[in-house]
Amino acid sequence: MNGLDSPTQPAAGQQLVTLDDIRAAADRVRGVALCTPLLPLADGAWLKPESLQPTGSFKIRGAYNALAQLTPEKRARGVVTHSSGNHAQAIARSARLLGMRAVVVMPNNAPAIKVAGVRADGAEIVFVGPDNEERVRRAHEMADSEGMELVSSANDLRVIAGQGTVGLEIVEQLAELGETRPPTVLVPVGLGGLAAGISTAVKALSPAARVLGVEPALAADTQESLARGRRIAWSGELVGRTMADGLRGEAPAPIPFAHLLRTLDGVLTVEEAQIAAAVRRAAGELKLVLEPSGAVTLAAFDGMTVEDPPRPIVVVASGGNVDPQRFIELLHD
Amino acid sequence: MNGLDSPTQPAAGQQLVTLDDIRAAADRVRGVALCTPLLPLADGAWLKPESLQPTGSFKIRGAYNALAQLTPEKRARGVVTHSSGNHAQAIARSARLLGMRAVVVMPNNAPAIKVAGVRADGAEIVFVGPDNEERVRRAHEMADSEGMELVSSANDLRVIAGQGTVGLEIVEQLAELGETRPPTVLVPVGLGGLAAGISTAVKALSPAARVLGVEPALAADTQESLARGRRIAWSGELVGRTMADGLRGEAPAPIPFAHLLRTLDGVLTVEEAQIAAAVRRAAGELKLVLEPSGAVTLAAFDGMTVEDPPRPIVVVASGGNVDPQRFIELLHD
Repeated sequence: MNGLDSPTQPAAGQQLVTLDDIRAAADRVRGVALCTPLLPLADGAWLKPESLQPTGSFKIRGAYNALAQLTPEKRARGVVTHSSGNHAQAIARSARLLGMRAVVVMPNNAPAIKVAGVRADGAEIVFVGPDNEERVRRAHEMADSEGMELVSSANDLRVIAGQGTVGLEIVEQLAELGETRPPTVLVPVGLGGLAAGISTAVKALSPAARVLGVEPALAADTQESLARGRRIAWSGELVGRTMADGLRGEAPAPIPFAHLLRTLDGVLTVEEAQIAAAVRRAAGELKLVLEPSGAVTLAAFDGMTVEDPPRPIVVVASGGNVDPQRFIELLHD
Repeated sequence: MNGLDSPTQPAAGQQLVTLDDIRAAADRVRGVALCTPLLPLADGAWLKPESLQPTGSFKIRGAYNALAQLTPEKRARGVVTHSSGNHAQAIARSARLLGMRAVVVMPNNAPAIKVAGVRADGAEIVFVGPDNEERVRRAHEMADSEGMELVSSANDLRVIAGQGTVGLEIVEQLAELGETRPPTVLVPVGLGGLAAGISTAVKALSPAARVLGVEPALAADTQESLARGRRIAWSGELVGRTMADGLRGEAPAPIPFAHLLRTLDGVLTVEEAQIAAAVRRAAGELKLVLEPSGAVTLAAFDGMTVEDPPRPIVVVASGGNVDPQRFIELLHD
């Protein structure tokens, strides 16, 4: 795989999210994001269903945390983003709750269900070609020309701090369950925003904890990047092979990656058949609709033996936005 | 429909579950049953997903509350029950957690998935013919001859108190959300144990609250019974028409019914097509797998106008144990 040009590597002096940032985010998102429960999976193992959040994924935490701290002047100008997936829906919902204008730059081949979700929350959509760079450029142009705030889906300290509230909850909830041993936490890794936030929070509160990322073997760019100590890009063609559409980022984003280098203990990979089996098990046994990206951690857990890694284990299931027809196909498999 | 013989009507002096009983139950089931979250449905409306409980339904609350208060001598003799559905799985799980022997008398035509669920928790199964009376008689015989505790699925004060913990949580959770207005609560009604427990708890804590039962129009025995002020039985053939297999009881059970006469504000009915649509919406929008019986309340909510009844509203979704093939069919509809 290709090493990225050095300007996109995290700067040596990159500012990192702190536990205080994450605690402030928790205060902001209270009443908007849900404190999702820990569902028992096995002795000493729980699943945290972020699929139950408003808009169907953890993304509401980071999106709302970013928008809620804008000045009134900034809020009046609105927000723009260029994600076509769960982050777009979270930005649209957060903007509606805060009475802000929101513009989402989406590819003209985006799934109808995601377009409808963004529209239902009153966001404007600007369609561009399917090219990722064009989408990013257009969003930046709008931010510059109209003075709108650009909130990217992972490469933003405010977003990372918001996602970190998942980690705060995990540590608090385990304590309430009487679990005082340092936990192992499994987190899906795409661009790395969720993993950066959770690992920062969990390690700050429980330094002996282990936080492991999980990726599809077909899109293991973060595993390779961490092994080499710098961001490595996989081609869109390569990462496009996985059914986990939320984890098809071609490389970890620079700011999350600067966190992961310090806080992540490793990355596990799972095969496509394991992901599909996890989606089926989540529906059949846990009564949860998970999208493939949200089920990679359960897939990794199901592949583990009881001894390794040490309990307690918390499996973060990040989202449930799966196309209904695709979901039915996965249940049939 | 037929009026039942008077001996099966609730006795005038029937002891009723109290708020203290329900609070004691909450202490017993803590750490076994989950405090399920309130998921936002609309402004001022939430869904409480009891489908996320261990064994996939609220039944763990009542079953565990009953078994946890047995004397050591009683526990050593074990428990017997005659439900073939969600209660059987909850008794099997509760008995395992308490180290008790459990016997479930099941019809020999019970779905394989439910047989497997009961077996997975180590319960013994006694198969009898599909006749309901034979099942009940056999369970009573075992209780008498072997000194086992018989815990029926609804007609038991301990079970009703356990189910009532759902109501305690609803009132507490609304207060945490800053909702101080008396709520409207929608509860599925089969034999009436859940509705009896919830309505007792909610009315004790919030006397101006409204608690409404929801039944399939094809199995509206409780609606008719409440209208007439006495238990009315519908034939097995009639109630067998609804897809909501958990609500096919032929009449409300006597002890729950004595509660419902005092605490339930009415019963709404829903059509089969509404139930199917609610199962689809729960999967598509809320990311929840609900069984038809668990989705009748969401079906009723979706049929309401914003004005009626007053908010806040809490919709109790009671369970998610739907056969995988049936679930796929419902998603296709």
